[in-house]
Amino acid sequence: MTVAMLMKNTVVSATRAAASARCSQWSLQVLPLRPARPVPSDIVIARAQRPKHIGKLAEEIGLLPSEVSMYGSRKAKISLGVIQRLKDQPVGKYVVVAGITPTPLGEGKTTTLMGLVQALGAHKQRNVVAALRQPSQGPTFGIKGGAAGGGYAQVIPMEEFNLHLTGDIHAVAAANNLVAAQLDTRIFHEATQSDTALYNRLVPRIKGQRKFSPIQLRRLKRLGIDKTDPDQLTPEEAAAFSRLNIDVDTIMWERVVDINDRYLREITIGQSPSEKGLCRKTRFSIAVASEIMAVLALSSSLADMKCRLGEMVVAFNKDGVPVTTDDLGVTGALAVLLKDALEPNLMQSLEGTPVLVHAGPFANIAHGCNSIIADEIGLKLVGSEGFVCTEAGFGSDIGMEKFCNIKCRNSGRKPDAMVLVTTVRAIKMHGGGAPVTPGAPLNKQYTEENLELLEKGLPNLLQHISNGCSFGMPVVVSINAHVADTPAEHELLRKAALQAGAFAAVVSTHWADGGAGAVPLAEAVIEACQQDNKFKLLYEPSLPLADKMTKIAQTMYGAGQVELSQEAKDQIKRLTDAGFGSLPICMSKTSGSVTGDPDIKGAPKGFTLKVQSVYVSAGAGFVVAMCGDITKMPGLSTRPAIYDIDLNTETGQIEGLF
Amino acid sequence: MTVAMLMKNTVVSATRAAASARCSQWSLQVLPLRPARPVPSDIVIARAQRPKHIGKLAEEIGLLPSEVSMYGSRKAKISLGVIQRLKDQPVGKYVVVAGITPTPLGEGKTTTLMGLVQALGAHKQRNVVAALRQPSQGPTFGIKGGAAGGGYAQVIPMEEFNLHLTGDIHAVAAANNLVAAQLDTRIFHEATQSDTALYNRLVPRIKGQRKFSPIQLRRLKRLGIDKTDPDQLTPEEAAAFSRLNIDVDTIMWERVVDINDRYLREITIGQSPSEKGLCRKTRFSIAVASEIMAVLALSSSLADMKCRLGEMVVAFNKDGVPVTTDDLGVTGALAVLLKDALEPNLMQSLEGTPVLVHAGPFANIAHGCNSIIADEIGLKLVGSEGFVCTEAGFGSDIGMEKFCNIKCRNSGRKPDAMVLVTTVRAIKMHGGGAPVTPGAPLNKQYTEENLELLEKGLPNLLQHISNGCSFGMPVVVSINAHVADTPAEHELLRKAALQAGAFAAVVSTHWADGGAGAVPLAEAVIEACQQDNKFKLLYEPSLPLADKMTKIAQTMYGAGQVELSQEAKDQIKRLTDAGFGSLPICMSKTSGSVTGDPDIKGAPKGFTLKVQSVYVSAGAGFVVAMCGDITKMPGLSTRPAIYDIDLNTETGQIEGLF
Repeated sequence: MTVAMLMKNTVVSATRAAASARCSQWSLQVLPLRPARPVPSDIVIARAQRPKHIGKLAEEIGLLPSEVSMYGSRKAKISLGVIQRLKDQPVGKYVVVAGITPTPLGEGKTTTLMGLVQALGAHKQRNVVAALRQPSQGPTFGIKGGAAGGGYAQVIPMEEFNLHLTGDIHAVAAANNLVAAQLDTRIFHEATQSDTALYNRLVPRIKGQRKFSPIQLRRLKRLGIDKTDPDQLTPEEAAAFSRLNIDVDTIMWERVVDINDRYLREITIGQSPSEKGLCRKTRFSIAVASEIMAVLALSSSLADMKCRLGEMVVAFNKDGVPVTTDDLGVTGALAVLLKDALEPNLMQSLEGTPVLVHAGPFANIAHGCNSIIADEIGLKLVGSEGFVCTEAGFGSDIGMEKFCNIKCRNSGRKPDAMVLVTTVRAIKMHGGGAPVTPGAPLNKQYTEENLELLEKGLPNLLQHISNGCSFGMPVVVSINAHVADTPAEHELLRKAALQAGAFAAVVSTHWADGGAGAVPLAEAVIEACQQDNKFKLLYEPSLPLADKMTKIAQTMYGAGQVELSQEAKDQIKRLTDAGFGSLPICMSKTSGSVTGDPDIKGAPKGFTLKVQSVYVSAGAGFVVAMCGDITKMPGLSTRPAIYDIDLNTETGQIEGLF
Repeated sequence: MTVAMLMKNTVVSATRAAASARCSQWSLQVLPLRPARPVPSDIVIARAQRPKHIGKLAEEIGLLPSEVSMYGSRKAKISLGVIQRLKDQPVGKYVVVAGITPTPLGEGKTTTLMGLVQALGAHKQRNVVAALRQPSQGPTFGIKGGAAGGGYAQVIPMEEFNLHLTGDIHAVAAANNLVAAQLDTRIFHEATQSDTALYNRLVPRIKGQRKFSPIQLRRLKRLGIDKTDPDQLTPEEAAAFSRLNIDVDTIMWERVVDINDRYLREITIGQSPSEKGLCRKTRFSIAVASEIMAVLALSSSLADMKCRLGEMVVAFNKDGVPVTTDDLGVTGALAVLLKDALEPNLMQSLEGTPVLVHAGPFANIAHGCNSIIADEIGLKLVGSEGFVCTEAGFGSDIGMEKFCNIKCRNSGRKPDAMVLVTTVRAIKMHGGGAPVTPGAPLNKQYTEENLELLEKGLPNLLQHISNGCSFGMPVVVSINAHVADTPAEHELLRKAALQAGAFAAVVSTHWADGGAGAVPLAEAVIEACQQDNKFKLLYEPSLPLADKMTKIAQTMYGAGQVELSQEAKDQIKRLTDAGFGSLPICMSKTSGSVTGDPDIKGAPKGFTLKVQSVYVSAGAGFVVAMCGDITKMPGLSTRPAIYDIDLNTETGQIEGLF
């Protein structure tokens, strides 16, 4: 038999297998774990496990060969056609994994998510998909520490997860920077050409023929010009068409790079003589801060993505009218660059259960969740008895709030339960525990039993439980166990959580034990998801922008009121006038505190939250409220992880990545 | 039978098939062509052909399944393990495809290369691999016109060829910009920290332990410090270790982006208050201008690449000593980022023959050839009776010269023949034909027979024939036929070429007819390759740098002498003193003329070539001589191709790309 025949047979057989497997329980080959003691490093654990061929996993979970594009043998892109094929399939249970207010100690949100899916898939025999964000490469080379989970609860291979993956972030950066190049070049050409020259170049006569491209016809339509023959426009119409008249002071679009490059935080561009003095100040952000990343995460289809890509507001013109990417003519080019990036990436957990990795928008200036499409494919694939566990960035006040009010508002999906990840040590820090210095030995407050300190930190946990309840979700508190924790400390947390209205509170040892250690958590989640779904959004779209901010601040942060700067007030008016008033709010706030001040731990009540400025991400579909400065470009330390990272050229193995 | 079993069987069967197929003729499934009249657009032709599954092609040409990483079904990465597996395999014939001095009319070098391999593979039943560069995405969105060939001689699918491919250029950009971030951040940290603070941060005590990373030990060794315990260094040694003391005025490293972004040609970075006033002027280049791209193209193995990545000189210190990427500690991180990019990408021609697409260094500041590794894999795969046809950028004076003196010098491979691509129209332009304006109708000089004008242009053709002969290669002139050419014009070119010493001169109609139209060319190439290989390099490494420049200018360009600016003289001295005197030269010269002035057509003799400045690309392994300003950052026109590019969201098809 030739390989070609075998391939054909493979396709036929897999097609049959997938058709018959629909809706039923997967027969998943579980990768057995043999946890070692003491628990080895993440990379040692990851390397000790041999992942399945990704094509095999794809088949096990009911994907057709035509729906899977392999990128090597450990990762694959999944076609959006799955959603259409399974459109009549009932969806599974939808679980969002959120955290308390993060501390430098690390609470293990991704680790818990991975432990939970390993427990559900490998130990409770449920169909389950983990849905994660793709991490930025910037921090990979900056701070030591992976985004693939840890201990015996990880995505593998972690090298591929943390580097390039299938190039989605690169595609986002390319698209983002194409907009920037086209934006500045257009300003330059408008400044240096007469109306006639500009129009003749925009609509050139080629071999005697002259016509508008479809995207130019769209601009004409927006301008109210109902003509299709370029030679029929009046000089005024031609000028209106040709001149975007961008007010340089209102440019919101920034270039991006997926590197921690602090020197690009503020720059002057256009200083070459060829730009004739038309220089301006601007900046680069890290790639995942691009609005295009948020668009990728929030799109429900290719058509929806293309539509959003054209609606992004890059600046205002001199009359205060928004100038969009479609006005710049780049909509189609962006869609072309991002076509493949819209397909989620299939990987696997340490125990061989499926993981969809897709999109990674910033959790402050954007909504910090993985993609709607990955969750949707997961929900269809797992079927009515299955589970999709998806992650929301930062604490529940930020990530989970946006997961609900932005992501679920867009997708129409209603989560069935929230898992709230906490640790004894983090709650102690919220109770006033000593600051933590990297490299220095931990204060014994954290390494010895200290019930008093723990008690003092409870308000932070309670705020986050309350946050989940505000959306009508059952909250399952997962206490991510640490070797230094004591049973009394666990019990204190558990009781407090239940008293505060948590549906369940369980200690979970997945870091040390893998899925087996998260079985109690999995059982609590299964039970929580059997409740009637009472999910509700926090506010109606019709609520004025400022009132939405207040609603979020009061309910999620415990604030007394929101104080808007004059600038913020003006911007709210401008955005409302421009028709953006019914968009949801994306609060851009420090992740280190429920308040606007990162130094304030715990969970104070009644404080004032200051909103300094407001802008629109019209393609993503939200209005961003900036509560203080947010660095969108991290830096490298004097000794970044770069110094430890190496490639063994004999084995091809990556060393020192974590 | 399960899919898993089928997959296993596939591997077993393919392994056997590949082992038995070694050295013998491939049994390649040819994709039949039915050329239409008039010849449709490139995209219509490309879409009408259904490519083979790339896994099938990989098997046909003797690759083992373990050596092939599929990226979807139309492209795959090929493992470097092939070279080791086939190390005892005799290699095939090596053919370089070069051009006359390019004109705006386009001579069709890639088209001819594709026609030639289609003829050899699909019509002459020879094992043949085409080796091409990956095109930059910048021009794809800037100027209309593909890099995948044209007419019935193309690489397919052209969309994948022209966009992202498997992410190699993105990886190069990420690596390049990581160096830049680490460079500027290091300067900042050195400027703002005391010797002690800097040393303590570079070699921190973690949980009581303090040690150098391997890359830090390498720096110590270079400094002549033979200690491994961080606590044993004297304060002077610690300071020497910690301070790179970079002279900011000598920084040669630039950031890159794969976009035509003219506003980044000259910029000021570091203007955020967080950089404390330590701003400086710099620029972005287009990604393919990165030295890392040249390194990728010239590396012979992972180990060689890592070595070169550490040797790149980013600046000089205040004592004039080169500061390398290894001093910055980034060597391992770069190797990790580029590990996958070092594997060539397999695609196919319109007639189903294999194409290796890999690397795309600039043809002026770098050497403008695809990778040594792709050619080497090709030469091994085709076997002793087979052919690898590889392309050299720009005219033979630039691309072919560097192919020989830089690429072949590095690889040790000796080309068996050179194909010189010309057209009647281009020679007419070199004879003084009217300038060409895009969009405007062509002057009738080009559309009607004009033997006088053609005759006047011959010196350019003759210079390029002479260039091939200088390296001892038989030169096969390929006259890329155009519908407006007349038989008399073809005959004039043919005769002149043969008189000038060309081995053969044939008219080729592959653009209209596919491989069938290039059969005479293929036959001439086969015959040329049967000659004894008399290939020789143009100069010895020991020749002084300035003399190498003169040798190239006189032999390849017809120059009388080279004039060095004072700056160039100083730099040559500095580089020679620093030990770079034995490197080959990479001339950075306009591609539009054999002289240094792009406006001079034809082939004047005895002119003076001015070299303005000189710098080293130590990782790539050459010294760049700059003859005039070279823009490393193209711009977008008022109406770039962006306006035509669109995505049909119903079919997923890309529209208007070409």
